[in-house]
Amino acid sequence: MSLDASKLTITKTTNSKTPLPKEQLVFGKTFTDHMLEVEWTAENGWGAPKISPYHALSLDPASSVFHYSFELFEGMKAYRDTHGKIRTFRPDKNMARMNRSAKRAALPQFEGDELLKCIDELLKVDEKFIPEGYGYSLYLRPTLIGTTSSLGVAKPDRALLFVIASPVGPYFSGGFKPVSLQATDYAVRAWPGGVGEYKLGANYVSCIEPQSVAATKGHSQNLWLFGEEGYITEVGAMNFFIVFQKDGKKELVTSPLDGTILPGVTRDSTLALAKARLDSSWEVNERKITIHEVQERAAKGEVVEAFGTGTAAIVSPISNIEFHGADIAIPVVGGTAGELTQQIEKWIREIQYGDVEFEDWSRVIV
Amino acid sequence: MSLDASKLTITKTTNSKTPLPKEQLVFGKTFTDHMLEVEWTAENGWGAPKISPYHALSLDPASSVFHYSFELFEGMKAYRDTHGKIRTFRPDKNMARMNRSAKRAALPQFEGDELLKCIDELLKVDEKFIPEGYGYSLYLRPTLIGTTSSLGVAKPDRALLFVIASPVGPYFSGGFKPVSLQATDYAVRAWPGGVGEYKLGANYVSCIEPQSVAATKGHSQNLWLFGEEGYITEVGAMNFFIVFQKDGKKELVTSPLDGTILPGVTRDSTLALAKARLDSSWEVNERKITIHEVQERAAKGEVVEAFGTGTAAIVSPISNIEFHGADIAIPVVGGTAGELTQQIEKWIREIQYGDVEFEDWSRVIV
Repeated sequence: MSLDASKLTITKTTNSKTPLPKEQLVFGKTFTDHMLEVEWTAENGWGAPKISPYHALSLDPASSVFHYSFELFEGMKAYRDTHGKIRTFRPDKNMARMNRSAKRAALPQFEGDELLKCIDELLKVDEKFIPEGYGYSLYLRPTLIGTTSSLGVAKPDRALLFVIASPVGPYFSGGFKPVSLQATDYAVRAWPGGVGEYKLGANYVSCIEPQSVAATKGHSQNLWLFGEEGYITEVGAMNFFIVFQKDGKKELVTSPLDGTILPGVTRDSTLALAKARLDSSWEVNERKITIHEVQERAAKGEVVEAFGTGTAAIVSPISNIEFHGADIAIPVVGGTAGELTQQIEKWIREIQYGDVEFEDWSRVIV
Repeated sequence: MSLDASKLTITKTTNSKTPLPKEQLVFGKTFTDHMLEVEWTAENGWGAPKISPYHALSLDPASSVFHYSFELFEGMKAYRDTHGKIRTFRPDKNMARMNRSAKRAALPQFEGDELLKCIDELLKVDEKFIPEGYGYSLYLRPTLIGTTSSLGVAKPDRALLFVIASPVGPYFSGGFKPVSLQATDYAVRAWPGGVGEYKLGANYVSCIEPQSVAATKGHSQNLWLFGEEGYITEVGAMNFFIVFQKDGKKELVTSPLDGTILPGVTRDSTLALAKARLDSSWEVNERKITIHEVQERAAKGEVVEAFGTGTAAIVSPISNIEFHGADIAIPVVGGTAGELTQQIEKWIREIQYGDVEFEDWSRVIV
């Protein structure tokens, strides 16, 4: 059976929570009244989707998700626009990526359009948890886990797709706060032929210990390097962008999708908007960047600004990169964020909140 | 609080199962009556260990184990010796490795000796599930998962260590069956600076899809290659051994622990026994081996035999390696397994079942 939104059943809670005051929201800490679940078996395919009160999962301790990391997820958000409507942002991109992740993780693929219809219904049922105002949103976490109760290392024959939702406030609550990074080469996030381009849980566990090391030196995140050349791949769990300038020309650069880079929705949106809207003094390039290029061009004054992109923050300005003990100062020309960093944030935000339409990026829930 | 076996509580089932007949045992499919659990919090450290009836785990869907792969495990076995005593095999090695895995995965470390005492008690409580006879054993699966209910990507502040146990029969039920491998270079299991040397769930999920590809061509497992040189790293989820001979000298080789190789207990035992017991016509080496060396020396008749090592099978003889479409035939001189392959299996089995003592490798549960 394919995943079929028309089979959705909804059981509402009899014990509804009061949404937290907006200023108390912490990313991913509190959740809405309900959750969405769809079970899958190799025998029968996808079962009927169900929305029911948020509840603990009861799983056999031999379930494959606990042992062999059969797990993948997406991060996306629902926004309340100025007319009170609920919108999601390019959710088709999340569905497509989730299916690519599922294939690589030997978990079942599904009809993304149908899951989006179910998510729409979850948003309607939990509507009161979608906070109003720029920077506020309901973070959605579609997750797919293998639930076969067997220790054999094999493709799961049972799986559970679930979606939980957490009301969140602005990533930078008091305005932008530029971050300091530690350029990391002793630990490596991803490798050609590995799974770095898929949103698997497996890509995250290995990044925590190096992040603790960076934190002891006062850095917020790792800037993940790759290879002897010192290629820049990602920043923490975000994609990396940098602006160079030389002889009056500016270049916006991000690392190409070579298999080691997560194809971020915000990365893609940043590239598309920059290409569509920046004037002819700009070049927008996906190309390899090394830490050495950044170091040398920063010394020559050719680095304008740098930022990370991701669903949580949209953009995260970068002010410093420590590489092998030496600090590379990154200008923050616009005060707490570079000018383009601020521009990109505004462009994306306006589309997310429905103030501006751009292609079919904003999905209105009706 | 540290992990303290003296705080162990035991609640026995009131509904004990009858152990399956030995011929019906399937690896990791059925479990004993009880399980061992120890909870950890950042605030209070390790709680009191408890043995209680085998039961489902109830976990918040936001638990970090489902999202960021905070999970690691060990595989070890308990054996019934000819005097009816229960023995485990080098369990201190598993505890040490589990602690190394925990550190790398930003999960809490623990007192291995204390956990072993608790495991001894689990074995006594579930004694009737330890099958008798060579090749039969009780497979033990210590597992550690992060249970923080938050989507923030951070070191878990809650964790659960649990041990479940599954009665198992011989890996090769009708005697050895040599396997055919596909040498795999389009997908990469592990890399320098990654986590391949730790027993994290994250290392397993990425191997299933390539294994399916190998299976469609009739191969049992992948032979994982690394780098342009074609270094052989592991075979499926086992360590790789090969025997070369030239001018009357024999060489037993396995890949060195360079960070991409799991430091297998059976690997270590194989090396130690080979060094202690093989005569002077042998060399025992940990050195890099490439698929090209295997291909060239097989063509010259210099390959004697090859096998994988792991807790599940002890040894798994290899009869064929497909590399870029060409088959490399590996001799199986002893019929269904090479002579050294059979010798190693016997040496390790005799120690596991207490027929022969070697150093302090066999732990008798009293």
